[in-house]
Amino acid sequence: MNARKIIIDTDPGQDDAVAILLALASPDEIDLIGITCVAGNVPLDLTTRNARIICELAERPDVPIYAGCDRPLGRALVTAEHVHGRTGLDGPDLPEPTIPLQDQHAVDFIIDTLRAHPADTVTLCPIGPLTNIATAFNKASDIIEKVQEIILMGGAYFEVGNITPTAEFNIYVDPDAADIVFSSGVSITVMPLDVTHKALVTRPRNDAFRALGTPVGTAVAQMSDFFERYDREKYGSAGAPLHDPCVTAYLIAPSLFSGRHVNVAVETTSELTMGMTVADWWGVTDRAPNALFIGDVDADGFFALLTERLARL
Amino acid sequence: MNARKIIIDTDPGQDDAVAILLALASPDEIDLIGITCVAGNVPLDLTTRNARIICELAERPDVPIYAGCDRPLGRALVTAEHVHGRTGLDGPDLPEPTIPLQDQHAVDFIIDTLRAHPADTVTLCPIGPLTNIATAFNKASDIIEKVQEIILMGGAYFEVGNITPTAEFNIYVDPDAADIVFSSGVSITVMPLDVTHKALVTRPRNDAFRALGTPVGTAVAQMSDFFERYDREKYGSAGAPLHDPCVTAYLIAPSLFSGRHVNVAVETTSELTMGMTVADWWGVTDRAPNALFIGDVDADGFFALLTERLARL
Amino acid sequence: MNARKIIIDTDPGQDDAVAILLALASPDEIDLIGITCVAGNVPLDLTTRNARIICELAERPDVPIYAGCDRPLGRALVTAEHVHGRTGLDGPDLPEPTIPLQDQHAVDFIIDTLRAHPADTVTLCPIGPLTNIATAFNKASDIIEKVQEIILMGGAYFEVGNITPTAEFNIYVDPDAADIVFSSGVSITVMPLDVTHKALVTRPRNDAFRALGTPVGTAVAQMSDFFERYDREKYGSAGAPLHDPCVTAYLIAPSLFSGRHVNVAVETTSELTMGMTVADWWGVTDRAPNALFIGDVDADGFFALLTERLARL
Amino acid sequence: MNARKIIIDTDPGQDDAVAILLALASPDEIDLIGITCVAGNVPLDLTTRNARIICELAERPDVPIYAGCDRPLGRALVTAEHVHGRTGLDGPDLPEPTIPLQDQHAVDFIIDTLRAHPADTVTLCPIGPLTNIATAFNKASDIIEKVQEIILMGGAYFEVGNITPTAEFNIYVDPDAADIVFSSGVSITVMPLDVTHKALVTRPRNDAFRALGTPVGTAVAQMSDFFERYDREKYGSAGAPLHDPCVTAYLIAPSLFSGRHVNVAVETTSELTMGMTVADWWGVTDRAPNALFIGDVDADGFFALLTERLARL
Repeated sequence: MNARKIIIDTDPGQDDAVAILLALASPDEIDLIGITCVAGNVPLDLTTRNARIICELAERPDVPIYAGCDRPLGRALVTAEHVHGRTGLDGPDLPEPTIPLQDQHAVDFIIDTLRAHPADTVTLCPIGPLTNIATAFNKASDIIEKVQEIILMGGAYFEVGNITPTAEFNIYVDPDAADIVFSSGVSITVMPLDVTHKALVTRPRNDAFRALGTPVGTAVAQMSDFFERYDREKYGSAGAPLHDPCVTAYLIAPSLFSGRHVNVAVETTSELTMGMTVADWWGVTDRAPNALFIGDVDADGFFALLTERLARL
Repeated sequence: MNARKIIIDTDPGQDDAVAILLALASPDEIDLIGITCVAGNVPLDLTTRNARIICELAERPDVPIYAGCDRPLGRALVTAEHVHGRTGLDGPDLPEPTIPLQDQHAVDFIIDTLRAHPADTVTLCPIGPLTNIATAFNKASDIIEKVQEIILMGGAYFEVGNITPTAEFNIYVDPDAADIVFSSGVSITVMPLDVTHKALVTRPRNDAFRALGTPVGTAVAQMSDFFERYDREKYGSAGAPLHDPCVTAYLIAPSLFSGRHVNVAVETTSELTMGMTVADWWGVTDRAPNALFIGDVDADGFFALLTERLARL
Repeated sequence: MNARKIIIDTDPGQDDAVAILLALASPDEIDLIGITCVAGNVPLDLTTRNARIICELAERPDVPIYAGCDRPLGRALVTAEHVHGRTGLDGPDLPEPTIPLQDQHAVDFIIDTLRAHPADTVTLCPIGPLTNIATAFNKASDIIEKVQEIILMGGAYFEVGNITPTAEFNIYVDPDAADIVFSSGVSITVMPLDVTHKALVTRPRNDAFRALGTPVGTAVAQMSDFFERYDREKYGSAGAPLHDPCVTAYLIAPSLFSGRHVNVAVETTSELTMGMTVADWWGVTDRAPNALFIGDVDADGFFALLTERLARL
Repeated sequence: MNARKIIIDTDPGQDDAVAILLALASPDEIDLIGITCVAGNVPLDLTTRNARIICELAERPDVPIYAGCDRPLGRALVTAEHVHGRTGLDGPDLPEPTIPLQDQHAVDFIIDTLRAHPADTVTLCPIGPLTNIATAFNKASDIIEKVQEIILMGGAYFEVGNITPTAEFNIYVDPDAADIVFSSGVSITVMPLDVTHKALVTRPRNDAFRALGTPVGTAVAQMSDFFERYDREKYGSAGAPLHDPCVTAYLIAPSLFSGRHVNVAVETTSELTMGMTVADWWGVTDRAPNALFIGDVDADGFFALLTERLARL
């Protein structure tokens, strides 16, 4: 099998960073043809900076990185420094990046790439707010039918929410964009909090990263140390949830994950429930399935894969 | 301690029936001064019929039973024959009741009772849609501050919903009434699906009811047999959830239950999430707590209590 | 033709007062069998006081007056002292009333009256928020089909709003109640701002009231003097709009008014447009007509009628 | 004074065509640096065709024309063939255009133009749905502060709506885009139905166009003949409202128009009132003014200007 061509659309974020590193460590399965950045966990100037830092850490200055939208569709930007720290990548002490940003806008890179490739050969992997994807779909609707699949981190159903009582951060930041994506007709696989809260970096798992003894292993361990602080204090959980790497792990080893093909609708009208991803898990509505909603992961298998792959960098 | 004076507001329903039986079996703790019926699981003429059947089964024709509102506030009535059967009390073969309904409207009985008693001496136990309670509060707002407590079955947070992907039946049927109750300022204890789905009538537990060898034990076992059919098929669960008896069990043995004192807000504007009870379980909003939201139950203790009490009837 | 039996449901209010006086002055056409009060322009204790003052002014202590709901359905009460003054009846210096309030609740009077009369023989004339009417419909849905007609003052379409940019006061105060009434299936005639803003008490018209030389004429002139202050300053209009008397004038001389039979739907979900009465004046939707929406009045004929009738008191 | 640089963003439409012709006829006041097309009255392929036809009719093949977004943000496209005919430009018999479309996307032309010019030197004149403008703002938020002014046709307040009972077509088609524009902070002048319904092409006015005896005059007369059919039948009005030319006329002779500087908010949540432009005309809210909302026009002066200018082409 050829490596699958993907674009990672991202707002790093420590867990975004690990998702990118996992992709870069897996060239047999994943051909990362570009990284597009969006405002989310931190503002756009920091998410582009952080993406560049990660590619330098992985010694992959060849991966093109693009800046995209700096705010959601029609709403003020909400950020998450309370989770990710002031830079979005707090934890390790990594040098300022020297890789240049591409001149092209992320939205145009997405459009041009999809137009330049045969249909069903490029997969979009959004792990931040869906602003760039929605804007690309809106600006150039012809690309929608060319997307092979969207595999995204976002949403929650039984786990309900992390930024509000009903909404997960990525969807909450830009619910209108999420609605555009979920209504687009593209084949979607969703990694919601329901699954990512089962992918916890416990102490032994983080020790395994650290034991790699490589710059990448050390940085990942330090990022996890920083990142886990928040969930440990809030939920009393056993470690930081590695949300975004679920997306790239799914590309490598889909059998680690299980879910249901159901309808997922995004709440865009009520402030109380704004940004909720309403998954019809029990099939009680007549809304047609539009997404594979992942609910479970073999966490030990996931961390074994992750550790093994990070060791390659 | 004196027995606590309560009004059960109900739409029986097999589990409503068990909740009423548990109250009638526990005179030391519960003084059931009236049963008010509302449209919900089945239309009002059937819920009043079923309440009368249950009191006859318990040989308690002295408990006054009142008919209330036959439809929710400004919405068409949704019923649940798919769960409870055509009569709402399918399962056992019980005789048509002869106890008369009271002439007074349920709403007026609630109002007059609260006015006739000192403040903080009457507790409302709604286990159906909240139409009667909201209408009483609206017609006579002076009674609101006289209510000792509202202990209700309704809502869902992590368990999300049973009638829609986000809403529990009782709240969904009359979200505007629920909003009035949750905004009233009365002290509220909520038994949501989160806890009632942990109170499952497994085979051994139902055998224990049947083994009582009494008409009540037999009827409860037959009702559970019928009722479990739905959840077993839908959720693959190990038995029927005994939603409503959690309310009366809580009056007898509150230590069986645990929860959090949080804000609960009812979605009333978006059709997608209509009737959701948004519980701020993790304290991420600045909305003031207005309810004790129960999340867990000692299920073995609950069923031991229930069986022991039903044996008394 | 026999006089038409009506109940006026009201929150006086200077213009409510004139509407009541016009009814009392027209026994050949109108049989006012009761006045039910609701919170609105001012709180309930003042609206009941003002209704009693008006009946005493008209020397009609025999008209029974009932107190109803003291707050809207699930929303905080909004009042309009900025229009009507602190008492709701600022302007004339009228004595405190001695007529007693009836013991019965307004909602129960409405219910009992409709049940006691043959179908289609009692008309409801709400000229305040629709809380009492909606609560009666909700408590006793059997009365809905017995109502002959509802003739109400409320709403706005081309005139858009007076309390917000899109909502008229009566509907805005209790939009959920309004929705219940407009969805009830009862035949409805609506006097919106579109018509009432054409019924302005200009200087000559008020002089005609004053020239009656009676206590009623003097009081109406003084109320109009006070009341006009608001609209004159806000809209630069030529006088106070006599909103509520349009309802009772319509009962006497319907040919003074013209309108369209259209669908009227009440906005109940969006805060921005809350309480708007969306009238499908141009027939651009497929929503079935449910109301006669009055758009025009022969203002000179209206004031001639009003003056002539007030002279009889 | 130098001619003002503008971009017309349009979905022609007969009235769009006249707006463009008026701009082309007024080089002393208006420097039309580009026409950007959007889906609206008819699909994008027809609006681009029609823009090209109009520039050819005016013998101005030098004006660059760009295709933009082919659908609104997250909603299905609604079109208005019932008003404008199958082609959007029904009426005259004009040849298929030969002017090429530009390769660049309309959104990028808007972005690049604003970036290439000093701040406050380029005015946007949207006379269709606001999709292109909102997408440009979203893709490149740095351009927002560079816009001199937005002068747009859209919305309604006292005139309420033409496509629904509360919404004007341009705003209704893409309410989310409209919300983005009205919330952007850019100085906005709005030509709502309130004013455009006062700019009616009566028979004598259309005769004046025809009497020009030029291809342009004839085509405008034929377009008006076709276009008026709709409003005459629906509203019984005296002629077709020339909505969009109000925008370009305002650039030439602002003193023909009068309005109020008020807050305008767009309804985006309720289906009932979706797309309404809520103008705080009477200043009853505390929302800050964000737009000059035009309410009146000197219609004779407007048509005199229009006829005089069209004669120049």
